[in-house]
Amino acid sequence: MPINGTRLNDRIARLAGFGQTADGGVTRPTFTPAYLQAAQAVADWMSEAGLAVRRDAVGNLIGRREGDPAGLPAVALGSHIDTVLGGGRYDGALGVLSALEVAQALHEDGVSLRHPLEVISFIEEEGTRWATGMLGSRFMVGHISEEFVRERADRQGVTIREALAGAGLDPARFREAARTSDEFHAYVELHIEQSTVLESLGLPVGAVTGIAGPLFLALRLHGRADHAGATPMHLRRDALVAASQIVLVAQEAAATASSTAVATVGRLEVSPGAINVIPGEVFMTFDLRDIVEAQRDRLEHTVRAASERIATAAGLRYELEELTRHVPVPLPEHMVDTVSRSIEAAGLPVHRLPSGAGHDAQIMAEVTDTAMIFVRSREGISHNPREYSSPEDIVAGAEVLYHTVVALDR
Amino acid sequence: MPINGTRLNDRIARLAGFGQTADGGVTRPTFTPAYLQAAQAVADWMSEAGLAVRRDAVGNLIGRREGDPAGLPAVALGSHIDTVLGGGRYDGALGVLSALEVAQALHEDGVSLRHPLEVISFIEEEGTRWATGMLGSRFMVGHISEEFVRERADRQGVTIREALAGAGLDPARFREAARTSDEFHAYVELHIEQSTVLESLGLPVGAVTGIAGPLFLALRLHGRADHAGATPMHLRRDALVAASQIVLVAQEAAATASSTAVATVGRLEVSPGAINVIPGEVFMTFDLRDIVEAQRDRLEHTVRAASERIATAAGLRYELEELTRHVPVPLPEHMVDTVSRSIEAAGLPVHRLPSGAGHDAQIMAEVTDTAMIFVRSREGISHNPREYSSPEDIVAGAEVLYHTVVALDR
Repeated sequence: MPINGTRLNDRIARLAGFGQTADGGVTRPTFTPAYLQAAQAVADWMSEAGLAVRRDAVGNLIGRREGDPAGLPAVALGSHIDTVLGGGRYDGALGVLSALEVAQALHEDGVSLRHPLEVISFIEEEGTRWATGMLGSRFMVGHISEEFVRERADRQGVTIREALAGAGLDPARFREAARTSDEFHAYVELHIEQSTVLESLGLPVGAVTGIAGPLFLALRLHGRADHAGATPMHLRRDALVAASQIVLVAQEAAATASSTAVATVGRLEVSPGAINVIPGEVFMTFDLRDIVEAQRDRLEHTVRAASERIATAAGLRYELEELTRHVPVPLPEHMVDTVSRSIEAAGLPVHRLPSGAGHDAQIMAEVTDTAMIFVRSREGISHNPREYSSPEDIVAGAEVLYHTVVALDR
Repeated sequence: MPINGTRLNDRIARLAGFGQTADGGVTRPTFTPAYLQAAQAVADWMSEAGLAVRRDAVGNLIGRREGDPAGLPAVALGSHIDTVLGGGRYDGALGVLSALEVAQALHEDGVSLRHPLEVISFIEEEGTRWATGMLGSRFMVGHISEEFVRERADRQGVTIREALAGAGLDPARFREAARTSDEFHAYVELHIEQSTVLESLGLPVGAVTGIAGPLFLALRLHGRADHAGATPMHLRRDALVAASQIVLVAQEAAATASSTAVATVGRLEVSPGAINVIPGEVFMTFDLRDIVEAQRDRLEHTVRAASERIATAAGLRYELEELTRHVPVPLPEHMVDTVSRSIEAAGLPVHRLPSGAGHDAQIMAEVTDTAMIFVRSREGISHNPREYSSPEDIVAGAEVLYHTVVALDR
């Protein structure tokens, strides 16, 4: 097998040394000293893998080998090496280092490809510093404005512009990081699953069908806070009883709408919140996702209609507010097929599943055909020092990535 | 009509002057200067009504006229003049002043009764100072221990013992406040309804069927706090979805179990409480009440069984804890009938309803036949400066109390 599993797993452990925390986690926000050291290590490994290394105008690290014949668009593989505060060693890093391993294996085996191959390590995927995720890939597709670079500050008041300058980059040239469709043949990202679907099925890898865009809604229900002992059931305007009905409608709608739909009420706050007082007000949030926008629209409609119907029937006033709306990104069927065949080529059963979390892949999907490969996560734990994927699963994932690159090159 | 409505309503306004707050409410905890002034005013009015006035060993104020023939047990009427912090002018005061008005009307009309008549103003019904309600009536039935008098302190660290001494009483003699069944023929308490049942029916008064004892339970559900985007519906252990089902079971059970059952989930707290994280834990409370203990037991059983069944089905661990259990007190049918006939005698339609809140009547019911009369409360508001009952309704209530006393004397 072309993949050097020992080298790959060793690099994961070594990269985790940059920003390592006492409990074995990793804290490595973009452009911190630990981040810059980690990026230097990745750059060195890129050179070792026969890639020409450059930092683009915003600090995305790009290792590239040319194809033969010259002039074809690139097959790009990537992910990120920044982490949340107190994160794990796999989220992001696994995608970058697997891509690097694929490039090095191709290099060492003397496999020539028609398309150029790129390994990309994007900056600031997690949004840890500037509270906005996938920043490096958004720079690459040209989404970021000059005003944003100048104004957006982290918690210490450091703007993106200042941070770029601090990392030795020229912020005035940030637009040079932008690239166009014709530079890319495809983009493939390998990532830990961050959930338990593969684990529950006993599978090491999966083919991602799309990236579910989140829609966040906030609902406030206004009832009447009466005496819990003195107010008979038929005279109540209990905001929590109505809220409970709405929770169950959302849950049921997501469970039955499509196999990729999810709905979560993550916050629910009761006022006044006394044991012997009927809840007068409830504030609650909805996180609704699906990989197909029309399906998510139906889910949203069900939640809105239920809020209206249930609140009205219970004699409550209500306000429903949209907080955030990201477009879901279904991945092209032929790309999912290519990954699926690569899983078969690695001798593994194929399972297709959506990504609930966001990834650079959803941004890159705007400019090129994009695929994702998921690797099993133990207990689905992520953004946590206990994040873990086994060395065997990691090798399986890298193999699938290798086969995918070869298939895409044809 | 024997009742002097002008005098009664005037006294309500005057009593509200003791401890009056800027927003028109009343703050008059037991043995505060405002309380002692109010008690003095009540004592003066008792004398004016031809009653012999005494303070018992714990400060309960008792006005009494003897019956003819001598030696029969007393018909006692009472309530309390202490208030919560920022309370209203009717809760408690209305019962004491109506009883006083009934006594004065009988006195002025020269009506002689076979039974002695007592008007009792109990101390510390609200539990504002020592976090334990109905203290004066519990002293009267002999429930309070020496240790409790010595140890129980208010927020300023003042014990009951110290407060009794501060009010000019001898704490060592507190047991002398205790009285026995053979001293009473009956106890009747008039009180504002503190809910909206009478208002919703357009009725000024109602006959209370019993006092619902509260049972407080606390339930903690332990699920798993997973990523709201990445975890498909069938792999979730969402504590809030289970909690919502349990809320609705409790609501439905109370709505259908009996006309007097109530169930309230007043607190519900979600952890971690983030918009994009599946609720891993929920803490929630139940307030279950009915006036018949067997009915409340059934309600409790339904909630316990639903917690077990729903938690287990959802793969959650749970703990269910009992916080407080008070025995419900159904009032004797013949006492409810007597009040009902007195309502008819006042020319009003009869409606029977339970009391959800606790009252001194539930304690006095342990030593004598007890009845309660409810007076309509505007919007059910209580423990609030906006507490209000109309002068007309107050007079109607006092008339019913008058007729009840006469009927009980036969």
